[in-house]
Amino acid sequence: MESTICAISTAPGTGGIAVIRVSGQDSIRIADTIFRGRTSLQEAKAGTVHFGRIERENEVLDEVLCSVFRAPHSFTGEDTIEIACHGSLYIQQQLLRWLIDAGCRAAEPGEFTRRAFLNGKLDLTQAEAVADLIAAQSKAEKDLALSQLRGSVSNELAALRERLLHFTSLIELELDFADHEELEFADRSELTALAEEIETKLSNLIASFRTGNAIRNGIPVAIVGAPNVGKSTLLNALLGEQRAIVSDIQGTTRDTIEDTLILDGITFRLIDTAGLRETDDMLENMGIERSRQAVERAQIVISVLERGIPEVILDNTAGQTVIKVYNKADLLTPDERKKITEGLCVSAKMGEIELLKNALVQVAKESMNSSAVMLSNARHYEAIKRAHEAIVRVQEGLAENLSGELLSLDLQDCLSALGEVTGQITNQEVLQNIFSKFCIGK
Amino acid sequence: MESTICAISTAPGTGGIAVIRVSGQDSIRIADTIFRGRTSLQEAKAGTVHFGRIERENEVLDEVLCSVFRAPHSFTGEDTIEIACHGSLYIQQQLLRWLIDAGCRAAEPGEFTRRAFLNGKLDLTQAEAVADLIAAQSKAEKDLALSQLRGSVSNELAALRERLLHFTSLIELELDFADHEELEFADRSELTALAEEIETKLSNLIASFRTGNAIRNGIPVAIVGAPNVGKSTLLNALLGEQRAIVSDIQGTTRDTIEDTLILDGITFRLIDTAGLRETDDMLENMGIERSRQAVERAQIVISVLERGIPEVILDNTAGQTVIKVYNKADLLTPDERKKITEGLCVSAKMGEIELLKNALVQVAKESMNSSAVMLSNARHYEAIKRAHEAIVRVQEGLAENLSGELLSLDLQDCLSALGEVTGQITNQEVLQNIFSKFCIGK
Repeated sequence: MESTICAISTAPGTGGIAVIRVSGQDSIRIADTIFRGRTSLQEAKAGTVHFGRIERENEVLDEVLCSVFRAPHSFTGEDTIEIACHGSLYIQQQLLRWLIDAGCRAAEPGEFTRRAFLNGKLDLTQAEAVADLIAAQSKAEKDLALSQLRGSVSNELAALRERLLHFTSLIELELDFADHEELEFADRSELTALAEEIETKLSNLIASFRTGNAIRNGIPVAIVGAPNVGKSTLLNALLGEQRAIVSDIQGTTRDTIEDTLILDGITFRLIDTAGLRETDDMLENMGIERSRQAVERAQIVISVLERGIPEVILDNTAGQTVIKVYNKADLLTPDERKKITEGLCVSAKMGEIELLKNALVQVAKESMNSSAVMLSNARHYEAIKRAHEAIVRVQEGLAENLSGELLSLDLQDCLSALGEVTGQITNQEVLQNIFSKFCIGK
Repeated sequence: MESTICAISTAPGTGGIAVIRVSGQDSIRIADTIFRGRTSLQEAKAGTVHFGRIERENEVLDEVLCSVFRAPHSFTGEDTIEIACHGSLYIQQQLLRWLIDAGCRAAEPGEFTRRAFLNGKLDLTQAEAVADLIAAQSKAEKDLALSQLRGSVSNELAALRERLLHFTSLIELELDFADHEELEFADRSELTALAEEIETKLSNLIASFRTGNAIRNGIPVAIVGAPNVGKSTLLNALLGEQRAIVSDIQGTTRDTIEDTLILDGITFRLIDTAGLRETDDMLENMGIERSRQAVERAQIVISVLERGIPEVILDNTAGQTVIKVYNKADLLTPDERKKITEGLCVSAKMGEIELLKNALVQVAKESMNSSAVMLSNARHYEAIKRAHEAIVRVQEGLAENLSGELLSLDLQDCLSALGEVTGQITNQEVLQNIFSKFCIGK
């Protein structure tokens, strides 16, 4: 934290302009040694932009704009300089080198955000949201990351944690007066109510992870059905390209084929599968086994049917939403179409798939609206599951009238798991793991 | 010029941050419709940076930094907003879309610089230098573009043009008083001296183009010599990689092989060629013909020799600097080495090529130092050649005591050619051609 760091913060490559960020207690002084403008950066007011040259020993490197930020009013919470230079790769790299020659250190991946976290500008869930925001590819992903960046997860947990902390300290006070057995600072019935409230909230958060994770990585949608009902044609129609090989031969699709589709700002991961049927062909059976696995991993299953062909019964769709689709509707008369009541009529071949697209969006939106705060990060999920286990133990302990001493241990476990999520409790290894996944310059 | 334009100005792709630039008379008002910060952008002082949200109809797109510039103190000379957002591709593209929805138009390639030119912030040579600066890959290219951006070519020509303009107006005054034959406002001997001075300066500029152009595109260096003296091995040694196929078989290299080498901030385009010898082989002769062409296009020729093998005489090296190199020095005794006086001893195979590298840099630097202002742009070169032809006609006219009327025509030609370079005289087609080569966002 003592050193001043610098990095190219814009996308790698040549552009109109590039931005180099410098952060640390010496950032303004160091940048000033190579900046020549109308005013010196050290005299510049915070939040101002200055035109000038980057120059040393009579070599001019570029004409730039320098923005000056002063601690604590910057992203990192430290003095920060942002230099917008011409976007030549050569100039970007030289400018970085000149800054290093002048006393900066090249920043590690995520080091600016890490400093923001260490300086208390962001908690850990917010810091992680920065990386998610940069990786966002659709509106749903952006909304999820932005809500987390703006503190949705932190606020939800902070309130719980504070009340739990209050109770824990009351119980620990009891322990200090252990010889006065009759003393009970912490009202057991209030604690029971609180534990129940916390258990409910944590359960909801855990349940939200399935959706949150799906939004972040794309909602998995398995396309399944009997052979030759047009599953691959449907995949191609949804994607608008000839992604999967299509033929009249049964068993054309063998491996599962995955591709991404963004509809109405939501990312879907479509998984086309081998047709399901009884067969002795070993290769085909291997494909069918993969189809079953795809159904298990899916959040939405598109069950493709064709009139006159028996429906394939899926036995493992407990947690999934199944959308039934009658394909090859172009071969049906209007009367035949009317008879189909429990599924959508589509024609993948003719591109008549609007009904299916709408249904996908509707199902996704329903699951997204079901919870206010959504977990999307596996690390949070894992820690909150531990917090949940601990609070369940607290509930059991209360029911069994366990001593404050034993309750206190479980309360501490719950608190510490919650603290891990927001980063109040943390260790170098966890931080290293989180920030090493960032890009450099952020 | 009425409309307000916007574009992503940083390199394409995902980065920590991205910058979107908005310029035009409505830029601040338009950006303000989607920006929510502590102060409105319209009330913000010029040269200040503001943190806030990009938001409309209750959807938040991102948290950003907005810099505010007011006409004429901006790159374009217009009111300008620069928005630094998170570098997700999705966010970049959405932000652009929101700005367009709010009344901006997507900028064409180079349109910001074009506006800077039309608003008189840059002349045409400076505008062109912006694109060169962004494309710069070495110190020499950067120095050349930056000196042009800072007005070296403009200033050189502006002074000439102003004095020429003065004389032209005096001569045209004479024409107005054509019936008073004895009147001579423009002193012919002064004009003769001025024309000579201008002719010299234009000649120097024309001569500088060879070097300027070479710096900009890499100095062409042909590697030539008899078969099997190790030309390809030398190319590989200079590049530090196995670029060309090397064998003991004569005629291994057939096509010319080009690659780029940067030494001491100078870009060289190395061209390895087929060995020169008398042969009846048709394919080999085609290769040898290409070797000769490479020599003609080169600015530096490395003539590779080997002790005991007759030197190949190059007949077309009038304008080139020839560096003689005795390869395979590792096979020579110290005594044999001493006998070689008129060339550098190197061993491509053993990587002993420092002498050659130094010689390349030295030759390049000598040609770079020979003129203060260097032309690097073919458009400037072509126009200045026309200006030169016109001034030569003026000199001839003065020598032959031609009338003011005829002198005036040539003076006008010279002035107009010089004006084309700096853009005082221009047309839409030329501008279109220049700016269409820019990247979008600059």
